[in-house]
Amino acid sequence: KPKDNNKPKEAISSTQSNHALSQQQLLYTTDPTSPGSIFFLPHGTRIFNKLIQFMKNQQTKYGFQEVVTPLIYKTKLWKQSGHWDNYKEDMFKVLGNDQSRDDELAVEPCGSHHVHEEEFHEYGLKPMNCPGHCMIFAKFERSYNELPIRYSDFSSLHRNEASGALSGLTRVRRFHQDDGHIFCELSQIDQEIKNTINLIKDTYGVFGIGVNDIEFYLSTRPEDKFMGDIETWNVAEQQLKNVLNSTTDKWEIREGDGAFYGPKIDVLLTDAFKKKHQVGTIQLDFQLPSRFELKYISQDGTRTNRPILVHRAVFGSLERFFAILLDHYQGNWPFWINPRQAVIIPVSSSHHEYAEALQKQLSGDILNSEDIAPITGYHFYVDVDKRDATVGLRIKEAIQKGYSYIIMVGDKDIANGTYAIRTRTDRKITSMTGDAIYQMFISLERQFK
Amino acid sequence: KPKDNNKPKEAISSTQSNHALSQQQLLYTTDPTSPGSIFFLPHGTRIFNKLIQFMKNQQTKYGFQEVVTPLIYKTKLWKQSGHWDNYKEDMFKVLGNDQSRDDELAVEPCGSHHVHEEEFHEYGLKPMNCPGHCMIFAKFERSYNELPIRYSDFSSLHRNEASGALSGLTRVRRFHQDDGHIFCELSQIDQEIKNTINLIKDTYGVFGIGVNDIEFYLSTRPEDKFMGDIETWNVAEQQLKNVLNSTTDKWEIREGDGAFYGPKIDVLLTDAFKKKHQVGTIQLDFQLPSRFELKYISQDGTRTNRPILVHRAVFGSLERFFAILLDHYQGNWPFWINPRQAVIIPVSSSHHEYAEALQKQLSGDILNSEDIAPITGYHFYVDVDKRDATVGLRIKEAIQKGYSYIIMVGDKDIANGTYAIRTRTDRKITSMTGDAIYQMFISLERQFK
Ligand SMILES: [Zn+2]
Ligand SMILES: [Zn+2]
Repeated sequence: KPKDNNKPKEAISSTQSNHALSQQQLLYTTDPTSPGSIFFLPHGTRIFNKLIQFMKNQQTKYGFQEVVTPLIYKTKLWKQSGHWDNYKEDMFKVLGNDQSRDDELAVEPCGSHHVHEEEFHEYGLKPMNCPGHCMIFAKFERSYNELPIRYSDFSSLHRNEASGALSGLTRVRRFHQDDGHIFCELSQIDQEIKNTINLIKDTYGVFGIGVNDIEFYLSTRPEDKFMGDIETWNVAEQQLKNVLNSTTDKWEIREGDGAFYGPKIDVLLTDAFKKKHQVGTIQLDFQLPSRFELKYISQDGTRTNRPILVHRAVFGSLERFFAILLDHYQGNWPFWINPRQAVIIPVSSSHHEYAEALQKQLSGDILNSEDIAPITGYHFYVDVDKRDATVGLRIKEAIQKGYSYIIMVGDKDIANGTYAIRTRTDRKITSMTGDAIYQMFISLERQFK
Repeated sequence: KPKDNNKPKEAISSTQSNHALSQQQLLYTTDPTSPGSIFFLPHGTRIFNKLIQFMKNQQTKYGFQEVVTPLIYKTKLWKQSGHWDNYKEDMFKVLGNDQSRDDELAVEPCGSHHVHEEEFHEYGLKPMNCPGHCMIFAKFERSYNELPIRYSDFSSLHRNEASGALSGLTRVRRFHQDDGHIFCELSQIDQEIKNTINLIKDTYGVFGIGVNDIEFYLSTRPEDKFMGDIETWNVAEQQLKNVLNSTTDKWEIREGDGAFYGPKIDVLLTDAFKKKHQVGTIQLDFQLPSRFELKYISQDGTRTNRPILVHRAVFGSLERFFAILLDHYQGNWPFWINPRQAVIIPVSSSHHEYAEALQKQLSGDILNSEDIAPITGYHFYVDVDKRDATVGLRIKEAIQKGYSYIIMVGDKDIANGTYAIRTRTDRKITSMTGDAIYQMFISLERQFK
């Protein structure tokens, strides 16, 4: 029950529409005590977690290994990575108390209420995961036969956007990316980019976002200022072009628009309000491996080979992708990602036990069980609405709340050993056993329906 | 291949033993650029994620709802929560750039390199999740029939421990808790605490930590300074005592040792080195609900009822629990939590395809598949060791690396449609079909073996 319980008005922008849907379905909220950070409410968290779990499994398929890396790093690291020079204004600075300061960073307070600004900037709150991943690469001796090494990370990231720019889920200060970094040889770029574009197309396809709403832009070497040798740029760009030609009809070149440290591919989606969002990115990087002195041993035994780094994300910001999905589905979530997959409505209290037996089964033996909950298997979000209200009213509310399936239990169902099930959109009621419903749910999830 | 590839020496402390095991199994690492923050390497991340997934499902069983809450909050919030007065020294301060500053926090630089310290402290990096959860509670009108409301959160937490105190996984600055907050009525304390103690015993039991290595301590109302009325304290303490009596033989009272804002139960484990660790906690809190002006509507319609807040954690710090498990198992992970569950060794390259078919099946159709990876189902960590080395050498190395199962594939196996499987500890080889192996793995996982 939100305090401000207005029905959603006709949406005039995607942000406004998102807020209205979120209020109705209790998905997320915000607060002035943390501007630009989203509070995901329980049902929003379910969607958020499903997106992450989906991507973790896709990344496993493509050989990524998940890591967990720190959120704060000493200023020294950000100087090494180059973020201090180029990105300082967009980073939050973090300050420990005196005891935490390293000896080399001596503190010289010059008055009881004053300290040097520089001394305060002991740490930066990370805006990206790349430096942490480079450090893991550098911690061990690496050989050519380990490459490509692919790290993924779903960590919180913070960027200090101006408060005027903050807007719902799409412009935030704290967000999560399906971030991944590939360390590879020049000759491996081709296959890695091909995999990434396939993953992008597969992923958007799962959400029903058609190929026609996806655009790819290749940004190439800037004329004047760039690092590395032209030969490497040419080989890399040719590989990117070949991959784009073989995987998509819908790509354009942005000549000279690449970063000075490498060419990139931007992936844009058009949302239901005809607004374009940048979602996926594929950024080649000839610079960070050099700043972190990354090297590997080649087949001939030389020890000073530099890997190429590829930054890539498919969803991009999970918060923004969430917003796009809100627009796209307008709250009518498909079953597999719906935070309210089914509700069971027992006609009266004599049917509660039978209802809870089904809830136990559909929850994958987690709910209503004396046993320790199993760690995997198929779990669905199923509630039992035991309120003392008419079946009609409870069905009506279940439809409003967006449950995919509504399951009714009365005397006849118990006598038959079945349940009466319908969808939120179709009044037609079918009798099914608990096993049959569970198998149907598993099948829907496996088809991403 | 770690650069410093020493065999683990005889451990003289748990920290030293943890580092040696981690080095051998590549579980985690640290770096001076982020003192007290753990980098979980891919195989350590697998264990970390399993612990979280295990706890998420247990918490679902007990009615918790997961939320995702911000990491940084304005100083104002920490003043409201009381952390600014009592916990300031242990918090990291976070500073945005000028544009991000709220108007009410006007900046008055008093020299090009100087600013008032207070103005820098725009945010605190959260040391606990409670204020965020209280804010979610307060965002909506709450009714007695919604209680208990239980939120869980696995967010990163930061505490500014002095650098001298930092030690491996057990004393860190950044950590994760299986944090949960229960908002309930006084009469519901009994059932909630009973559930929590059952969950604690179930959880530790799953890891083979016997009841004899678990101690419970009840800390009661301090003599002098406490908040709330004595009657509430007495009822709450009596409930805690009743629950402890009914659930465990091994508890002691610490008379007068409770926090001023509520009684608590500490849960201590004894590790393999006879060192005690505080893991679980159950802390009643009569203060935060009042500081955040939390209220709910009771059955008789009064709108100003204060819920009681229970802070509880079962693992406590996941990093510390990870350390305890490292000690406990000494790297011999049981199958269900092993980051290296099985390795398949094809005798020669003609057996690769057959090996990969099994890898596909055991990975839950994620690896070696053209299809989009399924989101749930049973997935196991299975590698194929295709190196051109003798079977004997590959088996030996697989044992050293700690794989639970070693599966060999040769001509005879392919002819029979089976695989030759053994454990890391027993040389006995059994022939099994792929289906039978997959079912065995599922069964092991479901039994937490
Ligand atoms: Zn990156
Ligand atoms: Zn708490």
